[in-house]
Amino acid sequence: MSKEDIGITVTKKDDFSEWYTQVVLKAKLADYAPVKGLIVLRPDGYSIWESLRSTFDKKFAKNGIRNGFLPILIPESLLGKEQKHFAGFNPEVFWVTHSGTNEIGDKLALRPTSETLAYTMYAKWIQSWRDLPLKINFWNTALRAEIKATKPFLRTSEFLWQEGHTVHTSQEEAEEEVIKILEIYKNSVEEELAIPVTVGKKSEKEKFVGAVYTTTMESIMPDGKALQMGTSHFLGQNFSKPFEVKFADKDNVEHFAWQTSWGVSWRLIGAMIMVHGDDKGLVLPPKVAPIQVVIVPIYKNDEGKEKVLPKVEEIKNKLELKEIRVHVDNREGLSPGYKFNDWELKGVPLRIEIGPKDIEKESVVIAKRYNCEKTNLNFTDIERIVIILEEIQKEMLKNAQEQSKKNSINISDYSEFKSKIEGGGFLNAPWCGKSKCEEKIKEETGADIRVIPFGSENLNLKCIYCQEQSQSIPIFARGY
Amino acid sequence: MSKEDIGITVTKKDDFSEWYTQVVLKAKLADYAPVKGLIVLRPDGYSIWESLRSTFDKKFAKNGIRNGFLPILIPESLLGKEQKHFAGFNPEVFWVTHSGTNEIGDKLALRPTSETLAYTMYAKWIQSWRDLPLKINFWNTALRAEIKATKPFLRTSEFLWQEGHTVHTSQEEAEEEVIKILEIYKNSVEEELAIPVTVGKKSEKEKFVGAVYTTTMESIMPDGKALQMGTSHFLGQNFSKPFEVKFADKDNVEHFAWQTSWGVSWRLIGAMIMVHGDDKGLVLPPKVAPIQVVIVPIYKNDEGKEKVLPKVEEIKNKLELKEIRVHVDNREGLSPGYKFNDWELKGVPLRIEIGPKDIEKESVVIAKRYNCEKTNLNFTDIERIVIILEEIQKEMLKNAQEQSKKNSINISDYSEFKSKIEGGGFLNAPWCGKSKCEEKIKEETGADIRVIPFGSENLNLKCIYCQEQSQSIPIFARGY
Repeated sequence: MSKEDIGITVTKKDDFSEWYTQVVLKAKLADYAPVKGLIVLRPDGYSIWESLRSTFDKKFAKNGIRNGFLPILIPESLLGKEQKHFAGFNPEVFWVTHSGTNEIGDKLALRPTSETLAYTMYAKWIQSWRDLPLKINFWNTALRAEIKATKPFLRTSEFLWQEGHTVHTSQEEAEEEVIKILEIYKNSVEEELAIPVTVGKKSEKEKFVGAVYTTTMESIMPDGKALQMGTSHFLGQNFSKPFEVKFADKDNVEHFAWQTSWGVSWRLIGAMIMVHGDDKGLVLPPKVAPIQVVIVPIYKNDEGKEKVLPKVEEIKNKLELKEIRVHVDNREGLSPGYKFNDWELKGVPLRIEIGPKDIEKESVVIAKRYNCEKTNLNFTDIERIVIILEEIQKEMLKNAQEQSKKNSINISDYSEFKSKIEGGGFLNAPWCGKSKCEEKIKEETGADIRVIPFGSENLNLKCIYCQEQSQSIPIFARGY
Repeated sequence: MSKEDIGITVTKKDDFSEWYTQVVLKAKLADYAPVKGLIVLRPDGYSIWESLRSTFDKKFAKNGIRNGFLPILIPESLLGKEQKHFAGFNPEVFWVTHSGTNEIGDKLALRPTSETLAYTMYAKWIQSWRDLPLKINFWNTALRAEIKATKPFLRTSEFLWQEGHTVHTSQEEAEEEVIKILEIYKNSVEEELAIPVTVGKKSEKEKFVGAVYTTTMESIMPDGKALQMGTSHFLGQNFSKPFEVKFADKDNVEHFAWQTSWGVSWRLIGAMIMVHGDDKGLVLPPKVAPIQVVIVPIYKNDEGKEKVLPKVEEIKNKLELKEIRVHVDNREGLSPGYKFNDWELKGVPLRIEIGPKDIEKESVVIAKRYNCEKTNLNFTDIERIVIILEEIQKEMLKNAQEQSKKNSINISDYSEFKSKIEGGGFLNAPWCGKSKCEEKIKEETGADIRVIPFGSENLNLKCIYCQEQSQSIPIFARGY
C-alpha cells in the first residue's frame, strides 16, 4: 500500500465536506451501512463514544441520575398524545407495520425520542412527593428519517445519543435541573473534546417541539457553520398534563409534575473531527483517544532490534503504569514513514520514535500530532508524558477557542450582516425578539438564531432587521 | 403504605411463575411497556446489566475484542442472503415499511441478529491476512416478535444483549475463539451471578440457524426447567461464502475466512432472579448489586439520633473507601421494620442496623440477605465487610451448585425418563446421536437436548429411546 492509498487527498480548506468524509472513512471511525442514511461505527469511532459515555455517566451519577432502558417501539396512539410534539416528528418517523407476516393494528414508531413512552411509565411509577425527583437517563439510538445526503455523525437516520428525562415537584427545581445539565454538557465538551461552546436559550421558533423553552450549546465549525452540540429542555407541565404525571404533595393534594428532558448525540464526534482535524487526517484530544501514545520502533534489517525492542517494552510498561493508553506498532514489513502517516491519519495525540541512535543518546523523539512538533525526551523524563498529554489537551482547547473567537463578529447593521454571513461564522446581532424578524432574516440570508446567550439581554440597541428596540443579542449563523 | 402493598404475596414454591413476576415488578427491576412483549428497565434492573456489561467488556478487551455499533435496520434482501438463517428468523421479524408517509422499496427488518449486516461490512474491511483476526462486539438490542405471554427478561420481543462477530484466517483459530468465549461466559456467570452452568454443544436440531455447530451454557432453574444462558457459534464458512468475506493470505492467494458469533442477553438477569430469589423477594449477589450494603439508622422520636447519625456517616465513609456501594436509608416517617422489608424485597446483600444501644456496645447488627442470618460486628471490625461480601458471593454460588446437583439425575431407561421428566430437572441420558430419537423424545415428553456436555461422549451405552449404541450422554430437560 502506498501513501496515496491511505492519505487524505483533499485539503481541509479547499473542500471541507469531502475532507470530512475522507477523514471519517480513512481513519476507520465509521462506514456507510447498506441502507441510505445509516452508518456503522468501527471500534476506533465507537470507543470515542464509549469515552464520552463514561464521562457523562460519572457526572450524571453525581447529580443523582441513573440509567434505564426503554424499548424502541412506540405505538402511534401514544406518540400522538402531545399534539405539537407529534406534528414535529411525524414526517420523519419510521413505521413498523408487520411482525412476520402479521399486520400490526396500532402501527409502531421507531423511537424518534422517548418523551411519550417514558412519561407513560413515569405516570405509573410516581405516586407521591417521596418518589421525586425522578431522574433517569437512557443511552440508546433515535431514528429520524433523513432525506438529505448522509453525513456520518452529522446527518444520519439513526444516531447514538443519550436522552435524560427528569420529574420534579416544583417549577424552580426543574428549571435548575435544566441548567445543571447544560453545565455538565458544556464542561464535558470543553474538557474532553476541547471544543468551546456558547450556551443560552433557543428562540421560540427553534425550541424543541413540546418544550416551554430549550437551552442549547452551540459551536462554530471551521467552515463557518454552526453546530448544535446538545440541548436541555424545560418541559413545564406540557407533558405531565396529557400523560398524567402527577404526585401527591406533603399536604396530600395532587399536582401535575414539572419536567425536563435533554440530550447529546454522536454529533459531538462529528464536531471533534471538524474542529481539530487537519490535512493529514484526524487529530484526537488525548482524553478521548483510544490510543494516546503510539511507539514506533525504528531499525533497518533487524539492526539494533535487540536493543530497541526491550527499551520499547520498558517505556510502554512505564506509561501503562501511569494509565496511559499505549500501543506499540511492531508490524513487520512496513517502513517507519508509512507507520507515521498511518498514525497521523488516525489522530493519535503523541508518537514516540525510538531507534539505535536514540538508545545511544538515551532519549526518544516525541512528535505531537496537533501541532506536528518534534522534540527529544530523555529516558529519565519518560513519565513527563503524562503532563505533556495534559498540555496538549489544554492547547487544543485554547487553539479552538481562538479559532472560535476569530469567527465571531459583532454586527449592528443589516447590510453588514448580509455581507458577513457569506463568510460564515457567528454573527452577534441585536434583535427585537419577534419571530417575524427572525423568519425574514432566515429567508433572506439563510441564517437562523442559534442561541440567545445567557446574559445577552439588551434593551438599548435596535433590532438589525426592524430597527425597533432590541431585547437581546442572539447569535445568528447558518447551521448544519 | 402497609407491608402488604409491597411484599410478595405468593411463595416461590407454590406459584413460581407469579412469584417471579411479582419480584421483577415489586423490586422495581422492570415494568411492562405499552406494547405487548416489551418491557422497560428501571435503574435497579438496568444497573445489573451495566455491571455485567462492564465485566464482559474487560474480559473481551483482554481477548482483543473491541466494541462497535451497527444500525438496527437491515434490508430484506440482505437478511435473505443466507437462506437457512433467513428461514429461521423470518416469522418473527418486525418490518419497517414506511418512513413518514413514504413507502420503502426494499422493506427493512429490525435486527433479529446482525450476522448479515456485520459480514457485509466485514467483506469491505478485510483485504488481507493483516486485517485478521477481526473481533468486534456489539451491545445493542435484538427484536424477535414473541407470540407467547411476556415474561420480563425471559420472553420479550426486544431484548438487550451483546453479539460478537469474529473473523479468522483458519478454522482452528476460529474454533479456539468459540471456546474462549464460552469460557468467558461460563466464568463470568459463575463468578458474578453465582449461577453454575453446564457447557457443551447443541445438537444439530438445536443449533443456531446458519452455524456449523453451536456451543452453549445451560442452567437449571428452581422450577426444574432449563435455561439457555448463552451461546457461542462456529460459523465455518457458511456466511463468509455468500457474503464474500475473503482475505489474501501471505502467499497472496484469496481464501474465504472462518467465522464465529456469540451472545448473551438479559436472560442472565432473569436466571439470577429465579435462582437466588426467595419468598421475601430478590436476592442479589454482591458483585452485581447496585447497593451492596444498606445502613438503617434506628431511633425513636429522634432519641439518640445525634449519636447514631455521625456513626452511620463514619461507617459509610469507611466502606466507601473500600469501594463498597453503600446506601444510608434516612427516610423520615418510616419504621425500621418497613425499611428492612423494603431492602429485603430489593435484595440488598447486607444490611447494617445501628441504634443507640449498638453505639453503647460499640458494635452494629449485620443481616445477610441470602440466608437471613443476623450477627453483631464490632466497630473495629467494620472493614471485614469486604470479606463478608466475598463470602456471601461464594456461598451463593455453592448453594446454587448444590441445588443444581440435586436437580440433575442419571437416567438409563426410557420409562424412568418419562416419569422423572415430570418433576423437572436435568436428565443425563445416553443417546444414539440421531435427530429422529431426539424428536420422538421431545414429542413424547416435552424434553429436548439442552446440551451435550464436553467430555460426555460415550459409545458403551444404549440410546434410551432406540436402544442402539450411544454416542454421548446429553442433558435432556424441558426448557424456557
